[in-house]
Amino acid sequence: MDQCRVLFLPERVESTVSAGTTLLEAASAVHVPIDAPCGDRGVCGKCRVQHSALDTQHSAILESPTLAERSSLSAEELAEGWRLACQARVCGDVVVQVPERALQSAVVPLSEVRPRPNVRKLHLRIPGPTLEDPASDLTRLRRALAERGLEPVVDLPVPRELPGVLQAASGSVTAVLVGDHLATVEAGDTTARLHGLAVDLGTTSVVAILVDLVGGGVLGIESRLNGQANHGADVVSRITHASSPDGLRELQSEAARTINACLEALLEKSGVDRREIYEAVVVGNTCMNHLLLGIDPASLGRAPYQPAVTDPVDCRASDLGLEINPNGGVYTLPNVAGFVGSDTVAVILATGMHRSDQVRLAIDLGTNGEMVLGNRDRLLACSTAAGPAFEGARISCGMRATQGAIERVWIDRGEVKLQVIGGGGALGLCGSGLLDAVAQMAGAGLLNGSGRLLAPDSPRLTLTPGLARRLVDGEGGRSFLLARRGRRPVLLTQRDIRELQLAKGAIRAGISILLKEYGIGEEDIAEILLAGAFGSFISPASARAIGLIPPLPLDRITAVGNAAGQGALMALLSTELRQEAVRIARSVGYIELSASPDFSAQFMEAMGLG
Amino acid sequence: MDQCRVLFLPERVESTVSAGTTLLEAASAVHVPIDAPCGDRGVCGKCRVQHSALDTQHSAILESPTLAERSSLSAEELAEGWRLACQARVCGDVVVQVPERALQSAVVPLSEVRPRPNVRKLHLRIPGPTLEDPASDLTRLRRALAERGLEPVVDLPVPRELPGVLQAASGSVTAVLVGDHLATVEAGDTTARLHGLAVDLGTTSVVAILVDLVGGGVLGIESRLNGQANHGADVVSRITHASSPDGLRELQSEAARTINACLEALLEKSGVDRREIYEAVVVGNTCMNHLLLGIDPASLGRAPYQPAVTDPVDCRASDLGLEINPNGGVYTLPNVAGFVGSDTVAVILATGMHRSDQVRLAIDLGTNGEMVLGNRDRLLACSTAAGPAFEGARISCGMRATQGAIERVWIDRGEVKLQVIGGGGALGLCGSGLLDAVAQMAGAGLLNGSGRLLAPDSPRLTLTPGLARRLVDGEGGRSFLLARRGRRPVLLTQRDIRELQLAKGAIRAGISILLKEYGIGEEDIAEILLAGAFGSFISPASARAIGLIPPLPLDRITAVGNAAGQGALMALLSTELRQEAVRIARSVGYIELSASPDFSAQFMEAMGLG
Repeated sequence: MDQCRVLFLPERVESTVSAGTTLLEAASAVHVPIDAPCGDRGVCGKCRVQHSALDTQHSAILESPTLAERSSLSAEELAEGWRLACQARVCGDVVVQVPERALQSAVVPLSEVRPRPNVRKLHLRIPGPTLEDPASDLTRLRRALAERGLEPVVDLPVPRELPGVLQAASGSVTAVLVGDHLATVEAGDTTARLHGLAVDLGTTSVVAILVDLVGGGVLGIESRLNGQANHGADVVSRITHASSPDGLRELQSEAARTINACLEALLEKSGVDRREIYEAVVVGNTCMNHLLLGIDPASLGRAPYQPAVTDPVDCRASDLGLEINPNGGVYTLPNVAGFVGSDTVAVILATGMHRSDQVRLAIDLGTNGEMVLGNRDRLLACSTAAGPAFEGARISCGMRATQGAIERVWIDRGEVKLQVIGGGGALGLCGSGLLDAVAQMAGAGLLNGSGRLLAPDSPRLTLTPGLARRLVDGEGGRSFLLARRGRRPVLLTQRDIRELQLAKGAIRAGISILLKEYGIGEEDIAEILLAGAFGSFISPASARAIGLIPPLPLDRITAVGNAAGQGALMALLSTELRQEAVRIARSVGYIELSASPDFSAQFMEAMGLG
Repeated sequence: MDQCRVLFLPERVESTVSAGTTLLEAASAVHVPIDAPCGDRGVCGKCRVQHSALDTQHSAILESPTLAERSSLSAEELAEGWRLACQARVCGDVVVQVPERALQSAVVPLSEVRPRPNVRKLHLRIPGPTLEDPASDLTRLRRALAERGLEPVVDLPVPRELPGVLQAASGSVTAVLVGDHLATVEAGDTTARLHGLAVDLGTTSVVAILVDLVGGGVLGIESRLNGQANHGADVVSRITHASSPDGLRELQSEAARTINACLEALLEKSGVDRREIYEAVVVGNTCMNHLLLGIDPASLGRAPYQPAVTDPVDCRASDLGLEINPNGGVYTLPNVAGFVGSDTVAVILATGMHRSDQVRLAIDLGTNGEMVLGNRDRLLACSTAAGPAFEGARISCGMRATQGAIERVWIDRGEVKLQVIGGGGALGLCGSGLLDAVAQMAGAGLLNGSGRLLAPDSPRLTLTPGLARRLVDGEGGRSFLLARRGRRPVLLTQRDIRELQLAKGAIRAGISILLKEYGIGEEDIAEILLAGAFGSFISPASARAIGLIPPLPLDRITAVGNAAGQGALMALLSTELRQEAVRIARSVGYIELSASPDFSAQFMEAMGLG
């Protein structure tokens, strides 16, 4: 069995993953926020969950307990089905009971969101017209709505569809309201079928989550590379392309096409009809937000970097080419500033930072790194261009976190151990593997404080023969050989290390400036939240080791998964939370790092691996 | 000079017409409602106007006074420039002062409409962003609007256009509001250029009026045959075609194309930019309303004939393919019922029937005849399919009221006199000529009470030799020869007379049922208002003579021109009047003639010419 189904209780959320995936990864994929503060090492024991077979015919549903699990759980507990989510790997269909204490406090669980979606359905019975009262179809529909206390604005498609719909079901009609608009009507009672789409539109990756707005359950998650990537890996090259002839239109339709590709896969797997998806809530950085909306992001490319729009935009799906119900709506969460977009607002919403007493630091790691610091009283945000290193780009053997990517690296008593996605041979190195490799190499003394790979014969090194053999001098300079399996050697070059140093230096400098502006020290941060597709897979220990984040105890560093997507989901489920997002966006203070006189100095300082 | 410009004061409305057109026709074309109760015969003297040259270089600006004028006006008055508008024909550019007493009381003059258009422009100066306050372009625009007390809904095009617009004019921006929506923004101060389009979408003819919404002046009027006519001349054949595959889409785009053709001509003549037309208000019968909106009118074709929609519809121009500003709006006035559409509502609005104490009868004559009877206390309406005879169709030598059409016929002491549009040879017969011809032939005893053309040798006839020669027996039965000039003889056949009898019988039967339902007699009608392109050109005396309308004194029968177009124009100029139209539509009582047990009997009775 290649694909396994994992049903999480009590949330009743199902995740379909490849065999060999850990329960924690399966949970993360569907936004079940299991807490794993030790960084997936099976040490803290916080991610304990209890499992049983989904289908009793199959017995092998999880791989055998790892050493970490055997030391953390008693034989009795193992017999009762208790496992560590970060260790247990699926090999069959499984039901997983997640105890409350295993859920992350860092992300608001979906079960706590009171569903108040912007989209509603009402089943109505419309009496037929008579010669005595030949009131129009729409008038009779309006009367039925008025009896329910509703006087919506009627969109043009409604009178177009209404005559046929009334006839098809003899006056039994379902009205679909998107906000205060009557967007469409359907024959019969379709109130049970009401879906929405939450989209995290990243510069590199696009994630779409299909949600049942009646039950509130997640029906599936799909991710695709942003099709705009043909026009450059980072935001700046997209801005440049948008200014070329037809460039903006191209980028708009590529964004839409990528979302549509995710949607297509979601529809196929879930069996949901695209016409029954009535709203998409989209978050993304400000540039992605502009491009999807067809707005020229040129002003983001030059001082003072003001966006064209920060407020939410509410438009029709057909205006943007999103292939949900064409009369459905698209709602973009508000941006904060030119380089702090609605994805950051969504992270704040999902983590509840704006409601908390504790001062927390959220870092959304991707092609851009956005950081927010603060609590209910005050929130400050900034953004730095981290470059695509964290997404595996511009790294010689870099790749995305897919089959064949080295995602974990340990150097243990002179031996290099690797964890490869899918369990086969290593084909390359993804962001979390890169971070681990550099952290472990620094720990093993292979790198000096400035990040230079030492020579195998360096007097400062005491290497095992195994490690020494891995230091290779080639045409492109010195490299470290991570793996020889697969089609080609997987090397980490000096240049790769420099790319990571630049990326992490930018992030760390941003954090320093945020702290300074906020008037607190690193030790005052109650918790660091690592968000983003990348943030949720990196090892917090490695991130701390290379100085990407301040040196807090590991139990105060939490991976919160795709918190931006989670925030989009929350806004899809609740108009109240949508209003809250607007308040958040307006209240967050924005620091433009390019205007900060300290930034360059902080950046230089933060690049080291000291 | 073929084309002459006529500037009417004090309204400052200009009409461009062919040389030879009467001042009354020129006024009617631009909705200056000069009263001419005697039916353009130069008898009542009510249409007295004073003229002067527009350009002092030319002296011949009007043809010499007619006999009627010489008997109605003193030599002194003629020297002062007084003329009868119904008699004086233009032959140069002329300024015409219309005294208040010459204006029809039957139609609300445009000068009495307080301009409160739904479209507004505001010139704003938007301060640029700074590194200290890098608020988004839209946020800065919203702040400027808020200072004026405005918080409009922002349509998607605005953030798309705003960055370029701000840059082009260094923050000098004109915001265009359509209702409570910010529809578009323009660079610089464009507040002086604000236009709208009023459209009367008839089954046969489409009239579009271009209006300057700043000054309230009419910039031009254009008319085209409705392109849907390829799919049948009447409403029923359009309904049938709409149900064929792709039929509805075809009819929708043909309606839009016809309006666009009028628009194109208006733009060319006026020099207005189509992007500076921000709203179109459209009236039409219920079927035309549905077809333009892309709504299947099938239900209008079967009992109980309920429409899909009666309320106003407010949508984007681009939704309907109208080539005004694509972000502009289209507003359709409300319908009353399946066969009493927004054109009738517009007639009521324009004539102020709903505000009057007097009980008046308005008849909008076209392919369908709509009739409204009543006053401020109660209004009743009905509709009958009059067929296309009034528009010159299905008449053997019928044609529209264009160059070469016989528009007036007199039989005077055995001689036939014709008035031909354009003054050249007769090519055919338009509706008003048809009506005159039948009325005059009946008066001369050529027709009996049942409408039969008598034989030349009938003992009941005493004919002059000239008239006798005109009675021709041919293959298709008996005919009356109206003219021999032009390419072919212009004949009026027995069948043509029957067509007119059917048409007028349907109208007159409708009037009888309205009166009965209202509980009054013909003598209680204070005034009859003849509306519609056709209604405004027919001779009230002829209409009365053939029994199309009840036998009221001529000074109580008034042609009110294209009152439907005038009503559309009023709704374009004033949102208050738009609300008034909604109240009118809801308050008018509708009589479905097909449900009336009396209709057939009344119809049979009303067909005679007795």
